[in-house]
Parts: sequence; structure tokens; C-alpha cells
Amino acid sequence: MTVETADPASTRPPNAYWSPVVHRLTPYVPGEQPKLSHLVKLNTNENPYGPSPKVLDAIRAELSDALRLYPDPNAERLKQAIADYHAVAPSQVFVGNGSDEVLALAFQALLHHPAPLLFPDITYSFYPVYCGLYGIDFVTVPLAEDFTLQVADYARPNGGIIFANPNAPTGRLLPLADIAWLLERNRDSVVVVDEAYIDFGGDTAIALVDRYPNLLVVQTLSKARSLAGLRVGLAVGHTGLIEALERVKNSFNSYPLDRLAIAGAVAAFEDREHFEHTRRAVIASRVELVAALEQLGFEVLPSAANFVFARHPARNAAALAAALRERHVIVRHFRQPRIEQFLRITVGHPDQNAALLAALAEILAEG
Amino acid sequence: MTVETADPASTRPPNAYWSPVVHRLTPYVPGEQPKLSHLVKLNTNENPYGPSPKVLDAIRAELSDALRLYPDPNAERLKQAIADYHAVAPSQVFVGNGSDEVLALAFQALLHHPAPLLFPDITYSFYPVYCGLYGIDFVTVPLAEDFTLQVADYARPNGGIIFANPNAPTGRLLPLADIAWLLERNRDSVVVVDEAYIDFGGDTAIALVDRYPNLLVVQTLSKARSLAGLRVGLAVGHTGLIEALERVKNSFNSYPLDRLAIAGAVAAFEDREHFEHTRRAVIASRVELVAALEQLGFEVLPSAANFVFARHPARNAAALAAALRERHVIVRHFRQPRIEQFLRITVGHPDQNAALLAALAEILAEG
Repeated sequence: MTVETADPASTRPPNAYWSPVVHRLTPYVPGEQPKLSHLVKLNTNENPYGPSPKVLDAIRAELSDALRLYPDPNAERLKQAIADYHAVAPSQVFVGNGSDEVLALAFQALLHHPAPLLFPDITYSFYPVYCGLYGIDFVTVPLAEDFTLQVADYARPNGGIIFANPNAPTGRLLPLADIAWLLERNRDSVVVVDEAYIDFGGDTAIALVDRYPNLLVVQTLSKARSLAGLRVGLAVGHTGLIEALERVKNSFNSYPLDRLAIAGAVAAFEDREHFEHTRRAVIASRVELVAALEQLGFEVLPSAANFVFARHPARNAAALAAALRERHVIVRHFRQPRIEQFLRITVGHPDQNAALLAALAEILAEG
Repeated sequence: MTVETADPASTRPPNAYWSPVVHRLTPYVPGEQPKLSHLVKLNTNENPYGPSPKVLDAIRAELSDALRLYPDPNAERLKQAIADYHAVAPSQVFVGNGSDEVLALAFQALLHHPAPLLFPDITYSFYPVYCGLYGIDFVTVPLAEDFTLQVADYARPNGGIIFANPNAPTGRLLPLADIAWLLERNRDSVVVVDEAYIDFGGDTAIALVDRYPNLLVVQTLSKARSLAGLRVGLAVGHTGLIEALERVKNSFNSYPLDRLAIAGAVAAFEDREHFEHTRRAVIASRVELVAALEQLGFEVLPSAANFVFARHPARNAAALAAALRERHVIVRHFRQPRIEQFLRITVGHPDQNAALLAALAEILAEG
């Protein structure tokens, strides 16, 4: 508290002002969002088809001077639309600014306990980042050699369990019966099922929320509903779990969803036809893409998502990714033990998939 | 971890699953967002004028199938527009989902230290809520009797200082020279100036960021830029402080701003004419409103914001607020020591202000 009279520019290093936690953080690195429009972008699992035209109409209708007014902090219209869609009560629904925000709030509100949080060794790489941010102790549980999740491996004391289903980046699906088994044997802590990709090949665990008060299911509008650019995510679970999320949300940001996002998201849940049509088209493209990749000699994990996880027994994955990039095709490669020889490839539009396959054929032919 | 074979519905109370912090939270309560359109809504300090038509055009232009794609996680276009407007570098700019999110991240990234955070006893009531969420120790420093902030009162060991300028709900402005004095004498911790209302009557402390590496200025597009419904906030400060915010943001949610919010916010900073025109109209209305309230016998604090803080020496504020509500006029009343006899009244459109004044005259005449 002494008055400095010399140089006004402080000589303290800038990070001397940081809260201690900031020094320890290793932030999440999202997939690249290149600005070059000629790229075949198969690296962040976006939907190749646009959102429902009714979503665009609903947003257009909301575009007015009313933007001067705050949105509904509780987004009640949206909770109702989601409740109607999933046949639950609105009080069982939480919404947020993308499923990443919903997950972050779930880590803070429900997964911060003395016993360690459990999640697979190969999964969404944001989970350990959230743990670092909130100081949550965690233990990773290795997936089996074929990258399946073995629920018996989770029968140990824990402060919560989280996994993605289908898993990312593997695409593998855990059957609902296994999830029920896990919930049954884990009554004392919360199990979060992160279903970002569920609509491309699995049954949602929302069917189990009335039976298990310890189940929280997280979903997003970024994938099957083609709204990555609008930032809307949701969770469904017992009202007691939802209340915890609301308490933390209302201690963080009262209005996470803007007026346009609420209007667009409501329309997205109302237009079931567009949703069914586009997700089936993606599933059909995935089947074709897997067959074509296998033709090229790739081993492809069974995928229930809008991406495939593949390796070539004779080629280095990083080199393949680099060669694809030279040909303007971007896929995702993770420099991580166990999966460093895999590429995660988004199922694109048929034209994009053809461009990918042509580029791969060329690269492989060059030997 | 034992298998329950009886009733599948757990007998644990729902909050047994909550992380310990959730039990201790007292969430922020935002001003009511009534759904009745005939109300004269002067309770949440929204702008009576709509956003720039160029904002609506920019959002309309962004409305396309491209919503299927993630937004730029760094919102570079927006940072550049803000940097241009405030004559700073883009690396000195942080953006988030409303200034509430920006503030929350600032509490977490920069204000969590062993020594207590200092802020006024009468100020934005979200500050103690953030402290509760992050476990930040704080001490409130009483404002003077006339509700001015006395910088000398902050000359004590601290882990940071935050205040709103103009203050809310009082509307009183702290001069820039006082802020410089505070920064000068507080070199070892961060001073956050929350400027939600600055454009209605003060000079921004952004002028000081190049001189003081411990200054973070937070602003919003919700007030003077008429975009409460779009959720965009920002912070400007030394790159070292911005880096801390980015690290926490990227450990929480990579994409807090959607494509439409980025496009709209860029246009809001580009259309200086609409901004100047509407903020001047609000300031002119405030001058008239203050005079008319004084005519009705109210004492009104000097306001540099788009609201006034007023009390009637002969009338109970809660009763006045209730009587106004019966007449379909909503203002904000805080049941809080020192200010329980005040009403916080947003400066509305001239028609709204006239309706408020007519209702007050009627209530006061009834005796």
C-alpha cells in the first residue's frame, strides 16, 4: 500500500495478479476453426446439413427492438419444448450456453466430492480440464483394448462418474442396459452421461431418469440439430440434480441463453421431421464412409456417432493428417497414448466424404 | 457400492448428491422479467430505444446454414471492433456471454487470493454471490453517508477491489482521478471497474489501462447499446490480465459467444451514430425525470446512469413500489439496510416516464 512515485509501469510480472488456480490450468484446445472456406472441414463433428428452416424463421421473427430487453432467465419456453420432446417435466430440464457450459456447471454442482471422479482414459478431453478448474480429484479408468467401456471397472468408491455415450473420439456406444447396471450399483454418487452424439446411433438414457435420481443426461444442439453456431446445451435428470445446476447457474450468470438462441432452439425441437431426415442422411453416409475406408485398408471402430475413428495398419496417422491437410482436407488427430495412430473423421456431406476418400486414395497410392 | 434390490427409487434426499459448495450458495435474484406486455417496465435498466438497425441487419446476414458450424472461439472480429472503438490492442480485450459471465470469470481468475476482496456495502448484489461460488473471502467497505465511494477507505491490505462505476443501484459516479489514485496506491492487486452504465454519464477508465497493469475494466452491451437480449459483455486491461481470463474461459467453455451475438455486437460498435443518438436521448430524459421527481417531493441522488435512485421523505418505499405495481408500473426496491427507503427507477421512454410520474402523482395525492 505504499505510493510508487517512479515509473508508473509496474515491474511485477503480469501473472503475479492471477488467482492461484490460473497458474495450474491446462485449457482445453478446441478443434481448429479455419477461416478458409475452400477447406473440406471434417475435424469438429459439425453436421453437414444446415438447421431446420423453421429455426431460421423463428430467429428472424425474434429479431426486433425487443433485443433491448433481457431474455427470460429461466428460458421456460425452451424447457417446455425439451420436456415435451423427451416426455419429462420442465423441472427435470436444465439449459445452458452449449453443452460445454452445462458440463462445466455439472462438474461444479454435482461432481466435486472428496472421493475421486471416475471417467475413461480415452474420452472427451475437456473432462480433466474441468477437474483442474474446480480442483476435483479424478481417476481415469482404462477402456478395454477394443475401446469399449467395461462397467465392472467402475465398481469402486467414487465421487461421481462421467462418460460420453457414444464415446468421443472413439464413437463406441455403451448399451442402455450397461448404464442401468452402473446406476444401480452406484446409488451414492451421480452418473453423468454426456450424449452429444446419441442421436446418430443410440438410445438416450433419458428413459432412465425417472428410475434413477443419480442420473444426469447431457445433450447438445450442436450436432444432430445442426446448431453448433447457436450454443445451446441441456441436461435432463431428477429435479434435485437440476436444482443444484440452477443454483450454480444463478450464482454465475442469470441469462446464459440469449433471445435468439431460445427462439431457435425451441423451433429445433418442434421440427421433428427435419431432425429425423438429416440425422438419417448422416447415418447413411457414415455406413458408406466406413465401407469405403475399409476398402482403402483402414480399420474403423464401430461408430454410433457422426464421426468415425480409424487407423491404417501401414501408415502413420500424424503423417496422414498432414498429407490430407496439404490436400485441403482437415481431420482431427490426437497426440495421446493408445490413440495416436487413429484419425477422427467427421461424417461430412457426400461431396466432402468423396473428397476425403479421393485424397486418401491418392496419398496411399503414393506409397 | 452394494446392490440395492428393493425400491429402485432412492431414499437419499436429492441434495445428498450436491457438491458441498451448492449447499452454501445464495444465488443472485435478477429483476423480474414480467410476461405482461402492458406493463411499464422500469425495473431492470434496459434501454428504452432498440438497438441499431445495422445490428439487426448484421444478424440477419449471419442467419444461414452456417449456423451448423461452430463460431470463432476467440471472436476475433469482435475483439478487433472493440479494440478499434476503444483504441487498444485486440490482445487487451476479452469478451463473454454478458458482463455477468465476464465478471464471474474475473472473480475466479483474478480476485481469488488469500487477502479479502474489497467492495462497497451498497453495490451490485451479484458480487457477494460470486464470492460464495468461488469461496472468495471478502469485506464490504461502507459508502459515505451520501453514498459516495471514498477511495481512502480502500487503503488496507486486500486481494483485489471491485466496484461499479457509476455505482448500482445508487447511480453515483466516481471521478477518473479517484480511480487513478486507487490504482496508484494498490499496485499489488487487481482493481476491477464494472462500467455497465458508464456511457450514460462518465468517462471510461479504459483510458488508464496502458498506465496500470492492475486495472480491469468490464463493460456490457446490455445498457447503452440496447442489447440485453443478446448477452455480450467485455473486459479491457493489460494483456497479462486478459490472459488469465482466457485461460479460465478456455477451461470452462470454448465458445461462449454464438455466431449471431458476434455479428450483432460487431455492428453495435461500428454504428457510433445510433449509439450517440440514443444515449443522449436517455441522458436528456433522465434530466427531465429527476426534475419531475423532485417536483413531487422526492430526493434523488445525482445519477450518471440510465436509472435514478430516489426516496420520498414522507412515504415508505416498499408501499410506493406496491402502489406503482397496482398501476402497472414496475420499479425496483431493495430490502437492504441503508437503502430500504429508496426506489431504483429506470429512465424509460418519455411515454413511460410520463406514465410513472402520473402514477406517482396519483399515489401521493391519495395521501
